[in-house]
Amino acid sequence: MHYLGIDVGGTSIKAGLVNEAGRVLESRRALTVADDLNGFLSALTELVRGFQKAAAIDAIGIGVPGLHSSRTHIIETSPNLPCLRRVNLEELLADQVHIRTISENDANAAAYAEFVCGAGVGLRHMAHLTIGTGLGSGFVLNGSLFTGASGYGGEFGHTVLNAGSARQNAGRLCGCGNHGCVEMFVSATGIVLTAEDMMREAPESLLHDLEWPLTSEKIYEVAVRGDAIAREVFKETARYLGIACANLINLLNLEMIIIGGGVMGAGDLLMNSAREIAQRHAFPSAYADCRIVQSKLWPDAGMIGAAMLARDR
Amino acid sequence: MHYLGIDVGGTSIKAGLVNEAGRVLESRRALTVADDLNGFLSALTELVRGFQKAAAIDAIGIGVPGLHSSRTHIIETSPNLPCLRRVNLEELLADQVHIRTISENDANAAAYAEFVCGAGVGLRHMAHLTIGTGLGSGFVLNGSLFTGASGYGGEFGHTVLNAGSARQNAGRLCGCGNHGCVEMFVSATGIVLTAEDMMREAPESLLHDLEWPLTSEKIYEVAVRGDAIAREVFKETARYLGIACANLINLLNLEMIIIGGGVMGAGDLLMNSAREIAQRHAFPSAYADCRIVQSKLWPDAGMIGAAMLARDR
Repeated sequence: MHYLGIDVGGTSIKAGLVNEAGRVLESRRALTVADDLNGFLSALTELVRGFQKAAAIDAIGIGVPGLHSSRTHIIETSPNLPCLRRVNLEELLADQVHIRTISENDANAAAYAEFVCGAGVGLRHMAHLTIGTGLGSGFVLNGSLFTGASGYGGEFGHTVLNAGSARQNAGRLCGCGNHGCVEMFVSATGIVLTAEDMMREAPESLLHDLEWPLTSEKIYEVAVRGDAIAREVFKETARYLGIACANLINLLNLEMIIIGGGVMGAGDLLMNSAREIAQRHAFPSAYADCRIVQSKLWPDAGMIGAAMLARDR
Repeated sequence: MHYLGIDVGGTSIKAGLVNEAGRVLESRRALTVADDLNGFLSALTELVRGFQKAAAIDAIGIGVPGLHSSRTHIIETSPNLPCLRRVNLEELLADQVHIRTISENDANAAAYAEFVCGAGVGLRHMAHLTIGTGLGSGFVLNGSLFTGASGYGGEFGHTVLNAGSARQNAGRLCGCGNHGCVEMFVSATGIVLTAEDMMREAPESLLHDLEWPLTSEKIYEVAVRGDAIAREVFKETARYLGIACANLINLLNLEMIIIGGGVMGAGDLLMNSAREIAQRHAFPSAYADCRIVQSKLWPDAGMIGAAMLARDR
């Protein structure tokens, strides 16, 4: 049996032919059309047809960013892909290619991949965080993918980590409309915001010599070159990540937190320090149950997970 | 069939004879002995024997504050009851009274009560918060009591809501050793801390006339008398409660958040405002799934839940 896993991103769509065991046999990319549903669907259909020439596809799984209803299978909203708002993508694509199609939130799909064939095999309680431009997250609880009452669950990136006070708010305005979301501290975006905060009080930092706009990659390079403030930016990001992990550990008593995403290129600068902070903030017995590890499947987790959901649903 | 539900608190132990349907037929109290295990166990045994004279007890459930291991059934730690550290209370009590006994974290027991015979009957995803001196919490996910890998899960009160920054921490030191825990904002303790913060900038407030130590009850009375600052303290507490609820809604896509505890005496001052804030902070489709309601069983939820766990386990 062969499954097609599709990971829809803000700029490109990745699709992979995946076998029964979750191994990617072949993969392709197409550009995402964000604002025109017909254009989006054409690109998707063409991508699928390219694979159909080479192999019989038994089912298709699509991971999409945004709130996906497990009741109606409709994508309620997708901030970066306005054309997918209130769309049943499963039906639309299946009508075009005549293959059974399922859809799921992309971060949930990625978590499912690590659960069935990545770092989390055999576990019953785990979280998967993808630290990129934003912070994606998915959860396995009691041995199955947790999506909540209607499939909207798992949005840890949009929980508030800095509520501030009525008289002094936390300042960092998130795309979701809230201030102080985890995503505004633990993500490439968060790294830039933390750097901007720290630079103001450190005119000597090499960060001031960087060309605008700042990016987490540029800040990372300056940190590697030894700039104290740039290093402090990563230390502070690791502190937020560690507290975020401790929150998940105290709330959910997880066995594993798996971390992937582009920001993990700075893995060593983040992981050890985040583990230390998490240990300091979580209950010792709960922390002892949990390992914080790097993703095995990133950057293919979303694609593989979508294929494995097509296999298992 | 009759079950004995026991709710162990920091100052008193409440026990109730509960029927199959979760109705309390008779209840008694004893003082808690916090620092001597033999004394604690004697009080518990005597309490049970009192009931045994009146009815045949089929099983006993005990809710205890602290981390309770679902693997070993040992109470790992109980901050306010040092004598229970590393104790298998199930075994000790069953040996004395010869009745099958199960133990569970008290906040989990309370959540279970609302789930099987309170406000949450028939739901699959709910949270129960007890806002008292601290903030207790228990969760039902996918239709069963969620306790995580080893039974330590559900400690929402000890997740960080104000992480501050490396250069400016959130200030409020929690009993668990962290700064900025939800419990330090949403609890009687939190109300006092918020009042102390606000009074500093408001020398005209009637709060300054209160006798020390401040309590949430005294602050409530001043709020009811119309003092603007005291009212602002409750508004700010409702803001924290609302953000905390939104965090749970975005993370877990719950159908209901049930709130009980002594602080809910100030119910109207808190609930409406908390709902409004939660709505503003949660994803609209996830918020639409969730009702935020007052507990049906408080203050007996812990006792009833312990009895119902004895029935069902």
